Amino acid sequence: MKFYSFWRSLASFRVRIALNLKGIVPDEVVNVDLMKGEQLKDEYRQVNPQMLLPALIDGDGPILFQSIAIMEYLDETHPHPRLLPADARGRARVRALALINAADSHPLMVPRVRSFMEHELNLDEAAREKWIRHWIGEGLAAMEGHLARDRETGTFAHGDAVTMADICVAAQVTGAGFFKVDVAPYPTVMRIATSCSELPAFAKAHPLKQPGAPASLSH
Amino acid sequence: MKFYSFWRSLASFRVRIALNLKGIVPDEVVNVDLMKGEQLKDEYRQVNPQMLLPALIDGDGPILFQSIAIMEYLDETHPHPRLLPADARGRARVRALALINAADSHPLMVPRVRSFMEHELNLDEAAREKWIRHWIGEGLAAMEGHLARDRETGTFAHGDAVTMADICVAAQVTGAGFFKVDVAPYPTVMRIATSCSELPAFAKAHPLKQPGAPASLSH
Repeated sequence: MKFYSFWRSLASFRVRIALNLKGIVPDEVVNVDLMKGEQLKDEYRQVNPQMLLPALIDGDGPILFQSIAIMEYLDETHPHPRLLPADARGRARVRALALINAADSHPLMVPRVRSFMEHELNLDEAAREKWIRHWIGEGLAAMEGHLARDRETGTFAHGDAVTMADICVAAQVTGAGFFKVDVAPYPTVMRIATSCSELPAFAKAHPLKQPGAPASLSH
Repeated sequence: MKFYSFWRSLASFRVRIALNLKGIVPDEVVNVDLMKGEQLKDEYRQVNPQMLLPALIDGDGPILFQSIAIMEYLDETHPHPRLLPADARGRARVRALALINAADSHPLMVPRVRSFMEHELNLDEAAREKWIRHWIGEGLAAMEGHLARDRETGTFAHGDAVTMADICVAAQVTGAGFFKVDVAPYPTVMRIATSCSELPAFAKAHPLKQPGAPASLSH
């Protein structure tokens, strides 16, 4: 497998956790530096015309893109351990929890969004950070609302085994850390995120543990 | 089944198409008026703590939320006709194409986002529409990049049978129509969207065909 990734990309983080959980070591990891705009260059555009990270090539291709679709693919082709529950209702719940992060929160703060806000809408850094913190908070609140209410919530987001929902909880909370969002109102989310962070598959996948990452982030 | 929906919600539109394709008629459709903010009221918050549409209750629950998760659930519990291909690579491609709309484009223009831009970032209508048109265009361009390149593209987004990808192409193109985005640069997307719109399951699900919808939209 060939994995196109960047240390800071939270979507790449999600796939990295899934790979670790399943014990898959990609043959090659290609670093696509989002801060230098390498995702917009022809070389990567030919891999993924959407020009977003991550992408994965398994064998002779075609390329896999979109982190949720990649995780579903990995779960189907490498079923141990499962990232989705055995029952349809459980799978629906896990997928929906995952999408709070992957669809309704994270896409609102990726580099292309921040760039458009700065250069096309002339929003200053304070306004951009207000925006980002708001949508991270909305995602955390939505997760908390479901996780705190539902009897299916266990040690992890869905029972006592790790699922795709936990991967997305970890991504959401990691984003909150990057942007110093107050996480006190979300105790259930934080309990689960802490349980995740104690697992080597999550800890080793953390953005700040990847090649090229700084020792810490100021925002 | 009890379906929480609103005529204008493109995420509800996606699920409505899936229900139609599978010949499922919900026992009850609950109208949640996004323009009046009914999704934020306690009554709906108790159904879906995320306070977004759509939601679906099948039998004794629990509630299903997030349109992609709901469509996956419907596909698992009502497998005829299938909304996903038989092979893992095909499913990954269809899911990824769907997420261009459902994760990377549509969540950037829903009512809560427009409201935050207006009231918290003080962006006027022109700026908000520039923003919306930009992200609709980015979604269309990403779809076109993949669909025009890939040999898997057929009459529909993946071969000659309708999949979840086509549902999301239809939602993307319908959003483009709402906001008068120039679709000329996306001929493959538009060819597929036209094929979809000729199918009764898509045509009957169209936002402007639902109860409460106006005859047309100025934006």
